[in-house]
Amino acid sequence: MTSVITLLTDYGLEDGYVAACHGVIAGIAPQARVIDVCHLVPSGDVRRGAAILAQTIPYLPRGIHVGAVDPGPGGARRAVAVEAGGRMFVGPDNGLLSWAVEASGGARAAYEISNEAHFLRPVSPTFPGRDVLAPVAGRLWGGLDPAELGPEVPVERLARLPQPISHLRDGSVEGEVVSVDGHGNTQLSIAAADLLALGVRPGDTLGVWLGRRQLALPYRETYAAVPPGELVVFADSAGLVAIAVNFGDAAQRLGLPPGAHVRLSPTR
Amino acid sequence: MTSVITLLTDYGLEDGYVAACHGVIAGIAPQARVIDVCHLVPSGDVRRGAAILAQTIPYLPRGIHVGAVDPGPGGARRAVAVEAGGRMFVGPDNGLLSWAVEASGGARAAYEISNEAHFLRPVSPTFPGRDVLAPVAGRLWGGLDPAELGPEVPVERLARLPQPISHLRDGSVEGEVVSVDGHGNTQLSIAAADLLALGVRPGDTLGVWLGRRQLALPYRETYAAVPPGELVVFADSAGLVAIAVNFGDAAQRLGLPPGAHVRLSPTR
Amino acid sequence: MTSVITLLTDYGLEDGYVAACHGVIAGIAPQARVIDVCHLVPSGDVRRGAAILAQTIPYLPRGIHVGAVDPGPGGARRAVAVEAGGRMFVGPDNGLLSWAVEASGGARAAYEISNEAHFLRPVSPTFPGRDVLAPVAGRLWGGLDPAELGPEVPVERLARLPQPISHLRDGSVEGEVVSVDGHGNTQLSIAAADLLALGVRPGDTLGVWLGRRQLALPYRETYAAVPPGELVVFADSAGLVAIAVNFGDAAQRLGLPPGAHVRLSPTR
Repeated sequence: MTSVITLLTDYGLEDGYVAACHGVIAGIAPQARVIDVCHLVPSGDVRRGAAILAQTIPYLPRGIHVGAVDPGPGGARRAVAVEAGGRMFVGPDNGLLSWAVEASGGARAAYEISNEAHFLRPVSPTFPGRDVLAPVAGRLWGGLDPAELGPEVPVERLARLPQPISHLRDGSVEGEVVSVDGHGNTQLSIAAADLLALGVRPGDTLGVWLGRRQLALPYRETYAAVPPGELVVFADSAGLVAIAVNFGDAAQRLGLPPGAHVRLSPTR
Repeated sequence: MTSVITLLTDYGLEDGYVAACHGVIAGIAPQARVIDVCHLVPSGDVRRGAAILAQTIPYLPRGIHVGAVDPGPGGARRAVAVEAGGRMFVGPDNGLLSWAVEASGGARAAYEISNEAHFLRPVSPTFPGRDVLAPVAGRLWGGLDPAELGPEVPVERLARLPQPISHLRDGSVEGEVVSVDGHGNTQLSIAAADLLALGVRPGDTLGVWLGRRQLALPYRETYAAVPPGELVVFADSAGLVAIAVNFGDAAQRLGLPPGAHVRLSPTR
Repeated sequence: MTSVITLLTDYGLEDGYVAACHGVIAGIAPQARVIDVCHLVPSGDVRRGAAILAQTIPYLPRGIHVGAVDPGPGGARRAVAVEAGGRMFVGPDNGLLSWAVEASGGARAAYEISNEAHFLRPVSPTFPGRDVLAPVAGRLWGGLDPAELGPEVPVERLARLPQPISHLRDGSVEGEVVSVDGHGNTQLSIAAADLLALGVRPGDTLGVWLGRRQLALPYRETYAAVPPGELVVFADSAGLVAIAVNFGDAAQRLGLPPGAHVRLSPTR
């Protein structure tokens, strides 16, 4: 079996929490290869977790993909297992998995994870990653039928994060900040292909509206095409338009949080 | 062989130090599965390292468990290998391993690690993790008899950290701060079961004495049961009582370092 | 096959970038053991990356060693595969690999990585680690002849970082700061053996010139031999002389950046 188990959490690396999940998996599925997607998702930031998972998933082998980011881990939130594109996603039903599921072709089936026979007991109210998601991932990797986990959930009832808006019209393209990465690069919901459709090419200057502010910024193949400290727009490694500062933090410089509205247009 | 090798250190992740240990192990035991428990133990903080190891160990498969946290790595501190509960702990004899050994049922046998035939040579005075602990772990994983490492050490002579105090009396329970995790959650030496014995249930309000300060705090199933920014007491994933701020840092807010005295009692 | 693949990058751990590389490798070489050397190289700091790789490489099993640190990833910089000492180094031709190649006995052969048949397509201009280096590493691990990657590069044409200077003369030894580690320990280009040649032994006091400043510092076997907060000189785990503050940050205290000139001499 060559499939993998992957882990994305907001547990941080200063404790043994991630290791406990690895340990539980290793006890159940000692032959499984486990890939850490990211454990430094900001605490409870479902949207950021969803963006990282969705943008990494195309590069991960098919397998069992665990996500554990939930601002209310002790609430009544159910956990789900979602099949999509030959992958199995496991995590809270709070939208965390939704962008990755859509990037994998959409949910084919989903199951509530409620059969305690597959959990570590007792289940800690604050650590479902260790006590529920990790053992379930190990068992699914080993071939457990997901229908054993609990009742089927109609896929249209799964929680979804709204897809960030993006409109191409009147010679400009509007979108919003999807995500800010660890370097302060500000990723927009605007596909690089949409800029191409507007006739914008690397080397051009872009008009950038941030609310009422207007900037003229260079559009380049890479952030490294401008001198250190300068703002630049480029197509990032996910195929989306991003605003960066070479060797700097664009999100901080421009005050651009996730969700902020941005409009781009060619300058003539 | 399905056992694992686990690593807990204070080496940090900004250098190649952890990788050097992984490399040494991979050269000696290429088939061993290695799990990183934590490498961000604060430098030389034996107590914090001991708490992380002891609380993670129940979730790790049996194997060779290396700990490398020592404020005086170049001193005369001996390294030891300690058998407990079918596990083998390897590290400095400074108490780092002691809570995990006790959590595993207590030491059954111990050996000084002094036989240089099993070390990388020369041994750097500042990096016994790479030159002593990692190769010894690889060889023990491969089946080396621990009696080959050096003279047996009577288990009652092993260094131990004092167990944090905890007293249940006169209708209240006293303890101390064991550890502060990476989120600022303040873990006490008080078992959740002791609060239950006092009749305290999730949903109640607790009286909390921090030295002379007295607070009335909500006792809940999880830190997420209170609004962001508010203090809460809950039973953490190790079964111990913890004080947290939902989306905040309780240790900083309350000025509670490890070792600080805390008393809890029901409010009527 | 027991060789490994190792990864050194400046991608950080806050995103899914490292995981994407792991995923690409796992898809091509599912049996390969992958060791993370370091992913917290300061962004674009080729010199620091080169120092970490060169000092870790002696402890890593032979394999495919990927380095991805490049201040100008989208420029015209070619990627290369360099054979040295039975190892294969893969990365940008900007000097990043050069100290590790020299530590492995020098380059025996080198190839430009230009054959797009071995890349992920399309290649993102900002993420050659994922789209070029990771798949090439996976294929080399699986036995691909490196001559298939592209034209041979004369080894004397490979970019090299200058070796840090070090001179032993007139009863003192001069060198420079090679690297500052995550603890603020300041590693010099001066071999501990050179101090020995000057008759300096652990326990002695050293004269230390930093530009025009002169200090008298204790030379000890380890940084832990002095009280917390005090400066100390010692031979580090790479066999080089280092200046440290026990439980502190020597680079910050002394204002010593990489490249700063240092002279050491015995005190009589």
